[in-house]
Amino acid sequence: MKKVVLLRHGESTWNKENRFTGWTDVDLNSTGIEEAHEAAKLMMDADLCFGMAFTSYLKRAIKTLNVVLEDMDLLYIPVEKSWRLNEKHYGMLQGLNKAETVEKYGEEQVLIWRRSYDVAPNEIPENDERNTRKDPKYADIDPKLVPLTESLKNCVERAVPYWNDHIVPALKKHDQIIVTAHGNSLRGIIKYLKNISDSEIASLNLPTAMPYVFEFDDNMNLINDYFLGDPDDLAKRMEAVANQGKAK
Amino acid sequence: MKKVVLLRHGESTWNKENRFTGWTDVDLNSTGIEEAHEAAKLMMDADLCFGMAFTSYLKRAIKTLNVVLEDMDLLYIPVEKSWRLNEKHYGMLQGLNKAETVEKYGEEQVLIWRRSYDVAPNEIPENDERNTRKDPKYADIDPKLVPLTESLKNCVERAVPYWNDHIVPALKKHDQIIVTAHGNSLRGIIKYLKNISDSEIASLNLPTAMPYVFEFDDNMNLINDYFLGDPDDLAKRMEAVANQGKAK
Repeated sequence: MKKVVLLRHGESTWNKENRFTGWTDVDLNSTGIEEAHEAAKLMMDADLCFGMAFTSYLKRAIKTLNVVLEDMDLLYIPVEKSWRLNEKHYGMLQGLNKAETVEKYGEEQVLIWRRSYDVAPNEIPENDERNTRKDPKYADIDPKLVPLTESLKNCVERAVPYWNDHIVPALKKHDQIIVTAHGNSLRGIIKYLKNISDSEIASLNLPTAMPYVFEFDDNMNLINDYFLGDPDDLAKRMEAVANQGKAK
Repeated sequence: MKKVVLLRHGESTWNKENRFTGWTDVDLNSTGIEEAHEAAKLMMDADLCFGMAFTSYLKRAIKTLNVVLEDMDLLYIPVEKSWRLNEKHYGMLQGLNKAETVEKYGEEQVLIWRRSYDVAPNEIPENDERNTRKDPKYADIDPKLVPLTESLKNCVERAVPYWNDHIVPALKKHDQIIVTAHGNSLRGIIKYLKNISDSEIASLNLPTAMPYVFEFDDNMNLINDYFLGDPDDLAKRMEAVANQGKAK
């Protein structure tokens, strides 16, 4: 049996400030680091031991992974990073407070931006300092691939090929793999793995730093999927994510 | 021009206790973490910006690198880890206090074990709990390649091929690379790069966490090599390494 754990990063400074983050490279806060330690403990209690790890280009995911690997005494395993596991790009919304954006544009519009499958926020203009194409992180990537905004559909369309071309092949060599990434890139992969419809994916709220285990047979048929950790805690954290889109 | 920075890890718990470490996977201590931050500052002051990093399978090197990459805002760059960059394996000496070993075997014998080119300490026996071949870290590696002791010659013979087969090819893509590793694996690479004789390499004492810059032309001819940082501090740290082999 093969196991893949999908782990959303711990709380970041902007999660806490309730701002749209997207590709903005904000750090974990102290709660986020604590969450990463708790996630590591849950995975050790479940006797997980990874042979390889995947993460994004964003430090909140990389640092979550580094905390987990250190606690699990697995710092030596190979780690592959890709922009394809980055958070959904939030375009012009990046940096804005979610509650303020709700007050300005209305809850309905913000819910469309946050949870509709194929509507993207407006693009960041080329001359905006937030322009991702000017970030040296992405200098080696074909600029046509580097987004200035994304719908969840766009995010799925760049994350799922990475699942198929990098993570699935790695499972031939490693029985257990961890993927530490972001709410929307992971939702995209989960949508694909569980064949969730475009409309139903909107209601999947992935909590921060709760290990989500996917079990596959040797032909990569999905057998089982479950969160580690206390179900009450899980429900509370999912609720918190859902409520981020509401005005204060 | 291509630049490679060779960086020995910061002080570990066993450096401080003056014990032979080798492949024992001991952690950095707080001084070591502080040294890593200082190294990052020196490299930022020198306007270095790496496209890729290499390190060993041992956490004192990996954590030194992680501190450096975080401070330099380069956590996203690819990192390749290899056992070939591990410290020299110290065989039966691993875990023993250096000064006590000097008292027991004499300064001359210990200096031979520490600094002779081709004399290795006695092997760790197969049934010893320190047997590296039983460590899950090295489970994927051909057991014949996993040492039970090493001379510096053995260490050079497994580190230099890694330089040629992994690091040099990566310089085709990346102008600046950092290699965070260990006193003896780095001495092996330096011996090769600077064509230092088997006898002269004994007197090269590599200080912890002082960035050592190697500059190459596009044909990989070595043009220049120099340490970053204060020369007095450098001399003091080299002296400290040299003195570890003396009885207290």
